Amino acid sequence: MNTMHWPALVTLAALTLCFATVAIVGRARGKYRVAAPATTGHALFERAFRVQMNTLENTVIFLPALWLCALFVGPLVATALGGLWLVGRVWYAAAYLREPKSRGGGFVLAFVAWAGLMIAASWGVLRGLLGG
Amino acid sequence: MNTMHWPALVTLAALTLCFATVAIVGRARGKYRVAAPATTGHALFERAFRVQMNTLENTVIFLPALWLCALFVGPLVATALGGLWLVGRVWYAAAYLREPKSRGGGFVLAFVAWAGLMIAASWGVLRGLLGG
Amino acid sequence: MNTMHWPALVTLAALTLCFATVAIVGRARGKYRVAAPATTGHALFERAFRVQMNTLENTVIFLPALWLCALFVGPLVATALGGLWLVGRVWYAAAYLREPKSRGGGFVLAFVAWAGLMIAASWGVLRGLLGG
Repeated sequence: MNTMHWPALVTLAALTLCFATVAIVGRARGKYRVAAPATTGHALFERAFRVQMNTLENTVIFLPALWLCALFVGPLVATALGGLWLVGRVWYAAAYLREPKSRGGGFVLAFVAWAGLMIAASWGVLRGLLGG
Repeated sequence: MNTMHWPALVTLAALTLCFATVAIVGRARGKYRVAAPATTGHALFERAFRVQMNTLENTVIFLPALWLCALFVGPLVATALGGLWLVGRVWYAAAYLREPKSRGGGFVLAFVAWAGLMIAASWGVLRGLLGG
Repeated sequence: MNTMHWPALVTLAALTLCFATVAIVGRARGKYRVAAPATTGHALFERAFRVQMNTLENTVIFLPALWLCALFVGPLVATALGGLWLVGRVWYAAAYLREPKSRGGGFVLAFVAWAGLMIAASWGVLRGLLGG
């Protein structure tokens, strides 16, 4: 079994989460009557839009860290940390949409998981460069 | 011949499309006198800005899906669906810039192509995990 | 020694730069009292926000170009051009935060490096397709 399938599965889940946050913005556009291209006009729409943008921004720096960790350290470490990141980001999105003040827990969990991927990947890459 | 060259070519075309939408926003800044860092102020500028942001957001979730499909299913399936996505996104951008109401066709085509990449990649990854 | 470690190191540096620009926006939110989800309200906050968004947009089109160049041309060419891009983007961010009018130099350097990656990667991919 090729264990690179696990980070691939985490990647597909992250892309699905991105798409879900876009779909929530689309629904909020209709529900709160905020016509494109406006991105302001109703507090609940702006909340959904912030969740989408924050998810997108974090996905851009998450996926390369996930794969560098998978390739230079190992797919199982990457999958464990990537899975934690996913839990944190889903928690963040769900909490933010209900009540912005409750978004902290998921945000911190996802950040710690990302920092773990960055540290692990840096260690793996530097070990290789220094002749490990 | 290494057929991974084909998804690479689709990737280069997608990056060029992203760059083109950025260049159009830059020109619109001058033409409609919307000085940075403002992103509002003239309807035609806002239209160009929406096209740029939407292209960027979609590219972020397109490229990983394209490559997972290329690696876990095959480069030719990925190239065919990726090519359709490109046609849809170029159509969307050109139509939106002319008349926002006409953007639907390209948007739907690109979405269907992306969904196809996600389904194919998921099938390829799960088949591998389940011992295929 | 696997020279793919070098583009991996450039990637980690680019992700760290993205994160740094996000952290600067977070600090500016507090300092200039611009509460989320607003992204306007104080000129110095808007400046930090523009730097973050511009860095993110450019990273999205940089990383795939870096890796296509690394895989289809060679990791050392990719690392040299990617290193130039990094210098340009750090210079751009630092200059923009101090004085928006001084952002040109870093912007142009990073753009030239990105264009170099795109041209090199296209040459590498097309050479492969045309049976090179």
